[in-house]
Amino acid sequence: MEEDRFKTQGPQVKNPSDIADTIVAVATPLGESAIGVVRLSGPQAVSIVERLVGKSLFRHESSKILLYRIPHQDGILDEALISVFRAPGSYTGEEMVEISSHGSVFVMRKIVEKVVESGARVAGPGEFTLRAFLNGKMDLVQAEAVCRLIRTRTEQSHRLASRQMEGALSKTVGTLREKLLELAAHAEACLDHPEEDIPPLKPGEFLRELDGMGRCLTELKESFRFGRLLQEGVCLAIVGSPNVGKSSLLNAILRKDRAIVSEMPGTTRDTLEEWADLDGLAAWFVDTAGLRQHVLDPVEEMGMVRTRQAMEKADVILWVIDGSRPLRREDVYVHSEIRGRKALAVLNKLDAGVHPASWDGFQMERVSVSAKTGEGMAELFAKVKDLLSLPEDSPAPVYLTEVRHRQVVERTLGRLEEAGQMIRRDGTAAYDVAAVCLREGLGILGEMTGEVTSEDVLERVFSRFCVGK
Amino acid sequence: MEEDRFKTQGPQVKNPSDIADTIVAVATPLGESAIGVVRLSGPQAVSIVERLVGKSLFRHESSKILLYRIPHQDGILDEALISVFRAPGSYTGEEMVEISSHGSVFVMRKIVEKVVESGARVAGPGEFTLRAFLNGKMDLVQAEAVCRLIRTRTEQSHRLASRQMEGALSKTVGTLREKLLELAAHAEACLDHPEEDIPPLKPGEFLRELDGMGRCLTELKESFRFGRLLQEGVCLAIVGSPNVGKSSLLNAILRKDRAIVSEMPGTTRDTLEEWADLDGLAAWFVDTAGLRQHVLDPVEEMGMVRTRQAMEKADVILWVIDGSRPLRREDVYVHSEIRGRKALAVLNKLDAGVHPASWDGFQMERVSVSAKTGEGMAELFAKVKDLLSLPEDSPAPVYLTEVRHRQVVERTLGRLEEAGQMIRRDGTAAYDVAAVCLREGLGILGEMTGEVTSEDVLERVFSRFCVGK
Repeated sequence: MEEDRFKTQGPQVKNPSDIADTIVAVATPLGESAIGVVRLSGPQAVSIVERLVGKSLFRHESSKILLYRIPHQDGILDEALISVFRAPGSYTGEEMVEISSHGSVFVMRKIVEKVVESGARVAGPGEFTLRAFLNGKMDLVQAEAVCRLIRTRTEQSHRLASRQMEGALSKTVGTLREKLLELAAHAEACLDHPEEDIPPLKPGEFLRELDGMGRCLTELKESFRFGRLLQEGVCLAIVGSPNVGKSSLLNAILRKDRAIVSEMPGTTRDTLEEWADLDGLAAWFVDTAGLRQHVLDPVEEMGMVRTRQAMEKADVILWVIDGSRPLRREDVYVHSEIRGRKALAVLNKLDAGVHPASWDGFQMERVSVSAKTGEGMAELFAKVKDLLSLPEDSPAPVYLTEVRHRQVVERTLGRLEEAGQMIRRDGTAAYDVAAVCLREGLGILGEMTGEVTSEDVLERVFSRFCVGK
Repeated sequence: MEEDRFKTQGPQVKNPSDIADTIVAVATPLGESAIGVVRLSGPQAVSIVERLVGKSLFRHESSKILLYRIPHQDGILDEALISVFRAPGSYTGEEMVEISSHGSVFVMRKIVEKVVESGARVAGPGEFTLRAFLNGKMDLVQAEAVCRLIRTRTEQSHRLASRQMEGALSKTVGTLREKLLELAAHAEACLDHPEEDIPPLKPGEFLRELDGMGRCLTELKESFRFGRLLQEGVCLAIVGSPNVGKSSLLNAILRKDRAIVSEMPGTTRDTLEEWADLDGLAAWFVDTAGLRQHVLDPVEEMGMVRTRQAMEKADVILWVIDGSRPLRREDVYVHSEIRGRKALAVLNKLDAGVHPASWDGFQMERVSVSAKTGEGMAELFAKVKDLLSLPEDSPAPVYLTEVRHRQVVERTLGRLEEAGQMIRRDGTAAYDVAAVCLREGLGILGEMTGEVTSEDVLERVFSRFCVGK
């Protein structure tokens, strides 16, 4: 049964000796710049670069930078700083060479071309890090964190990614796996060698241990909610009836003129997305087309569909109303659309005064702002954070950040719960099946850090990387 | 008189000991990527990076790469490869450090921020290369070539830039300066020590020498025409009456659908610019609005103004006519507009057959093509090259590539001609003034490689660089 499970996960690509080819990629963005870096990894990396520069790199020490001329036609392509990183001490664990040339697109393309002519292959996204993973230089969670770190925009997302890159989550998972292994081994020992002097494992103890691990896993699972928010940022949809100042609010938040603001209702047809750094938290703002009950034309209808999709996706809805005049029927209609969702009422146009009839006693958080003057914006941000009930930042909290992580934890929990049910029903008689469940759980949890993995999972993880990493 | 000349060129900034500050810049394009490089140069480069990583780099050998963690808040900002390049062996000739981090915009910005907090200053465009120049690591022509090399797009422009970076033009200028100095010294010696045993310099010899140098300088001056074309690329304006297939021709050249092609005349209102690599030569194609004598509206009028500007700028005009039907009055009108300019007639729509009355015996080069099938394109490119009468590529020709170069050569020539006139008029009696002219010429020619320079010139040269170089 256990073997069957793993068979469906496809072939294991964990043997580094399978890798015989040398890969190459431009590791910096392609553009006119001071420096551009082309990197190679693989058994032929050094000999291919030797052909490129027409010199032996035999005496080139590991991690030493030397200046070489790259010959080209009757002259040179460029002068480049070349560093050799010998296996296994390199990033990928293989022989690696980095060629740091002038940041000329022509030069970098030519270098890659020449290197490919000498037998290297252009790398796919994340292929260097894949090799680092396959060679045991980092686990899968750390590899994912590298990808996240590159995409990071704010202090919070950076902190999460760098902690994970350093191994915080891997360590937690490792501890859980050890405990699981210990428990499974204990149960199996009781079964296999009942005559020996093994301390007996009573069903009550077994269940207590399972419960303890279950609680840890559940906590981890629940950390995903915040992990995702902190890593990817929160999504805020700005909705409201036409002409209450939604686009002006977005501009005030971003402090620039991104959205076209016009006095004519219905100016915003598409949804606009922009991000801002709210004290270290990335916030994605979606400006939407004004909501109204009676739609005039198919274009407006389409805008409304998009608005509802944005509301569906949002972590918090900012419901904008004009606080300087009495509440209108249209506003009440919008309220009916957002009811039941996490929302903050934003009474705009504070600069034009507060009208006593602008609020109708709805039971929800609200804040008064002026998109025009910027007044009340700090309070708006604070209320958004309150609504998200983000955790206090403790010295080293561990969060799940990937859907993949949460799925692994959920599946592991499932196996643990199954084991618990059987023991509760059949006592020690269920120890053998329970041990199988625990071993399965161990295997599943091993997928998190990549102890157990499949090409499918690797494909999915590394395809999100940029080329050259 | 000589001193006055140099005074007007502003202060000399040639003393490297004037540079007391340390500069920092991101040297790779800012974007999500595998690797990002931040570089520092200046006396405090090492100590500032020591503060950044919280470790001493005292034992860090020059040109050696080591992995450091950059602390940040309660964790790390990133793991980065750090290389130290000790003065004077570095690119700038100063103490330099390169920090190769993950290509995360957040991380790179933070590194620069921290480094600036520790006392570095954000570098201006080309400031690293400026320091390399001031420290005698390269001359001004080589520095300009670095900037060109980064911008290079084709084999031809690359070859020119890399040869100049290697010092081809500098060497030619150096030889000319030596000859000039020798001649001036000879003339001065004849004046100052007539009693001594110096071989007399007869006016005829003096003039012969001047003529020889004048020919070299004139050749150099004339090389600018090709130097500019090879370096910056040629500019080709595609013109013609409406609806003859100008945009289709551009698409055929670029082999993609860049221009909006429509059967409706007057679709192209703006001029579009695209470049293509014509066997190593960069060619900028400008698609223009159709030319006609009687314009319908102000928008079309504006398009026509732009078309004429494009024609003015073009090295060759591609005059497109529909070869499948008789020549029309509008075509004849366009011919009147391009008369006297370097132009090639392109008879398009070869796929639809050649109409015998499509050509009216104009005295100009022509070629038949089909933008639809691509037929005739190779011939078109060949004829363009013929019209430009580009030079045969010899092993190591020297070209002027910058307007600045040409101006220096012209000014030097002026001083030499002045000296020649005076000697022709007054013979040996003019040797003293002639020697002054030669010394002036020597100074002017020294501006080319930057032996003599001013802040103004440096400002102009280095402001064209990218930041970080």
